[in-house]
Amino acid sequence: MTARRSHRPVVGIVIGDPCGIGPEVLARAWAEGRLHAQCRPVLIGSAHAMRAAAELARTGLRVRAVETLGKVTGRRDAIEILDSGALDPAAITPGADSAACGRASAVWLDEADALARAGRLHATVMGPISATAMQSAGVLDRVVQIKPGRSYLLLASGTLRVAHLTDHVPLREVSALITRRLVGSALRSIDAALRAWGVERPRIGVAGFNAHAAGTEDAEQIAPAVRRARAAGIDATGPISPDSVFRQCIEGRFDTVLAMYHDQGHIAIKTARFGGNIAVIVGPPYPHVTVAHGTAYDIVGRGIADHTMIRNAILTAGSLAAGRGFPPLQ
Amino acid sequence: MTARRSHRPVVGIVIGDPCGIGPEVLARAWAEGRLHAQCRPVLIGSAHAMRAAAELARTGLRVRAVETLGKVTGRRDAIEILDSGALDPAAITPGADSAACGRASAVWLDEADALARAGRLHATVMGPISATAMQSAGVLDRVVQIKPGRSYLLLASGTLRVAHLTDHVPLREVSALITRRLVGSALRSIDAALRAWGVERPRIGVAGFNAHAAGTEDAEQIAPAVRRARAAGIDATGPISPDSVFRQCIEGRFDTVLAMYHDQGHIAIKTARFGGNIAVIVGPPYPHVTVAHGTAYDIVGRGIADHTMIRNAILTAGSLAAGRGFPPLQ
Repeated sequence: MTARRSHRPVVGIVIGDPCGIGPEVLARAWAEGRLHAQCRPVLIGSAHAMRAAAELARTGLRVRAVETLGKVTGRRDAIEILDSGALDPAAITPGADSAACGRASAVWLDEADALARAGRLHATVMGPISATAMQSAGVLDRVVQIKPGRSYLLLASGTLRVAHLTDHVPLREVSALITRRLVGSALRSIDAALRAWGVERPRIGVAGFNAHAAGTEDAEQIAPAVRRARAAGIDATGPISPDSVFRQCIEGRFDTVLAMYHDQGHIAIKTARFGGNIAVIVGPPYPHVTVAHGTAYDIVGRGIADHTMIRNAILTAGSLAAGRGFPPLQ
Repeated sequence: MTARRSHRPVVGIVIGDPCGIGPEVLARAWAEGRLHAQCRPVLIGSAHAMRAAAELARTGLRVRAVETLGKVTGRRDAIEILDSGALDPAAITPGADSAACGRASAVWLDEADALARAGRLHATVMGPISATAMQSAGVLDRVVQIKPGRSYLLLASGTLRVAHLTDHVPLREVSALITRRLVGSALRSIDAALRAWGVERPRIGVAGFNAHAAGTEDAEQIAPAVRRARAAGIDATGPISPDSVFRQCIEGRFDTVLAMYHDQGHIAIKTARFGGNIAVIVGPPYPHVTVAHGTAYDIVGRGIADHTMIRNAILTAGSLAAGRGFPPLQ
């Protein structure tokens, strides 16, 4: 990571489904003028969709389609987009799902991933995709997957950051997944990722599984994993009572919390809600950030979609890729 | 409830453990002068402890021991306390647990409960007790218990209110407790309590059990119970995704949320934290409110203990007993 670190990293942003609000919020984020001080953003997707969106948002910005990354200037007076021709503009119907657009979203995600793995992009951002459209094209698996033991979802909202040990699993089955091995593996991955992103000695608060962290899983699985991680130089603390660890993180005691299950972390993030939530995937060899909202088909083209989340996602991707840690966001 | 409704209900406040911060925060709450517009507060406990606390807090208030409720004047220029002589003042050592004080706490709680059941108190408040002291005296069971099917813990913090279907149970065992019968019973109890307290047609948001409320328990137990409750005239909605129902309540969509397990509700309440959390027990035939903090032995007598929570607990008890609903609190 250090070798390809740059003050203004190249951040590849997949526009998401071209029929959703992705293109218009990206046009507005670009026009706001805050992106280029932090990174060299380049879009990946349909130049046609972006031209329509830039016009709709009255940005006055030209959309410049480039064929290769080498041609990206990194200047803010034009919206630069890598368009490989994966989508026929005629297939775009704003506000509606189509398999063609779902298929194109997958191609763009693959292009972004390949460029990032080749070190030509320093981070990637996924704009709002349509799971329905991608599902109908049979390509939903191309969205970066969460696989406990290999990758983890980290949500960030203000000073609250929460990585999740497990993802979508029936709650009654989570207990059996809480093992020393998995907790240890997650702590190592999260510690390594945060260090690579510029958090010097990541302080990780580990949530317990049961109320007051007083249960079998807490004592027999989580506590020993935390002890072992500490012995290996990881600044992990826990298990901590789940109803106090998130507040402690908000108040600056930790750089991130490791939550044991989906709702434990999601309830904290969505109830606190500082605005501008983003999601980072811990696992890929580069920062991959996604927006927390969807395609919002009901408001497409009405000029009212909020660009805060996509802007925050891009600023976070740039900051992490540059090794500057998590940026303060509004 | 309506029969004994009063504009200024009589609220009995057990001072909690006399060695903790209970007496001093009560003295300060009294001196602040906001209680008497809402209720006629009367303390239950040690007059000796209250005299020391009133002096410490430099309230300038006299402590007036009364033998029976009939002698309570409801005036704010003296701290009125019902002292049955359950505790020898010599047994009080500020900042330390003792079985004698634990035993006295239980006697006071029993006295408050008996007076409330006799209709002579319209609501009760429990100041910060010491579970250790009461345990050492073998009387911890005298604290009002949470028994799913009969009583429920409702936490309130700003506009977020959360009743809990289950209490301290290993999380892996909660699934088996989520039955149509229990959910239905809880909805009826909560609906009836809120109506008695002045919430005209209580809007209850029912949290799902699994992520996105998409699981077996959600579909087979919670959803049918909500349907049946609605058919019976209860304004219940759900199951709603646990990571959005609390935010909806904060924003005014519901009067309370019914959470399925301890941490689901406690994480939301403690992460949002508007300050001044209080707990109400749904179940007893009168409003019983407790403070969310403990005895804070480490700061006893230093004059720095915050009286916000006990003041909010008393104002809430008075408001609920008068049928004015939950008061706006700071």
